[in-house]
Amino acid sequence: MQVRIIAVGKIKERFLSEGIAEYTKRLSPYLKLSIVEIPEEHRGTRAPAGQEELAKEKEGGRILAAIPERAYVVALDLRGTEISSIELAARMHDWQLAGTNTIAFVIGGDLGLSDAVINRAAFRLSLSPLTFTHPMARLILVEQLYRACRINSGEPYHK
Amino acid sequence: MQVRIIAVGKIKERFLSEGIAEYTKRLSPYLKLSIVEIPEEHRGTRAPAGQEELAKEKEGGRILAAIPERAYVVALDLRGTEISSIELAARMHDWQLAGTNTIAFVIGGDLGLSDAVINRAAFRLSLSPLTFTHPMARLILVEQLYRACRINSGEPYHK
Repeated sequence: MQVRIIAVGKIKERFLSEGIAEYTKRLSPYLKLSIVEIPEEHRGTRAPAGQEELAKEKEGGRILAAIPERAYVVALDLRGTEISSIELAARMHDWQLAGTNTIAFVIGGDLGLSDAVINRAAFRLSLSPLTFTHPMARLILVEQLYRACRINSGEPYHK
Repeated sequence: MQVRIIAVGKIKERFLSEGIAEYTKRLSPYLKLSIVEIPEEHRGTRAPAGQEELAKEKEGGRILAAIPERAYVVALDLRGTEISSIELAARMHDWQLAGTNTIAFVIGGDLGLSDAVINRAAFRLSLSPLTFTHPMARLILVEQLYRACRINSGEPYHK
């Protein structure tokens, strides 16, 4: 199975890049992970007042273009459904059994995700009621994917 | 206000140590953060069968000894209460107003926290229904403390 993470914005902190690279490496025996970074519409600055929606839609268009055609899309969304690590592993297993070739996880930027992206998602996943920076969310996601793969392989994974 | 994080076990991954160090530095204008690491009872190996409870109690005794006398104790516990970042900031503010000098956050090891530690806690905080490694929980906690301090100072903190 292939997993593509589509994320808006670059990772600035080195420790986060290193952590994401580490879990990408650990995931390689289990699945093919690719990470596609979508440029922010207003890099390093806020969108001009009243332009946020337009900027979000532009980012959304780029996200949609990066989603493989028949992918199962999971949007990370604070208003989505919270699940346990065991449940995430079970869902990954189910998606695979259902013949899903690619799962695309989408992580928005400061502006959030456009309606078009939210509507393309088959599942909206909330990592926590806590708000994380988008780079932290990316690290947490890859760690949880690794945990799910270990659970589904029946291998131990210390807490 | 002082915050002490009491955590069982060492951090092995460099990216996590660097991340925690980074947020410790960013927190320094807002609060005095100290991190006390409690040795695991069975370092690097599982406790012998039937000995887990005894080991957990021993770790618990060391945790209790590391809690300053009049500290407000928050235990990180998957079965605890989930709150948003805004709520965490509000609680930090309330604890400070109530004259709390030290907040002690306790993060268990692979064995979890003993009943004695759970009973000493005034609040049990769940970061997410997802299970995190204990080192990841430590990184998430310091990031959320920084976020709470920024929120309470009325300073912007991008998502």
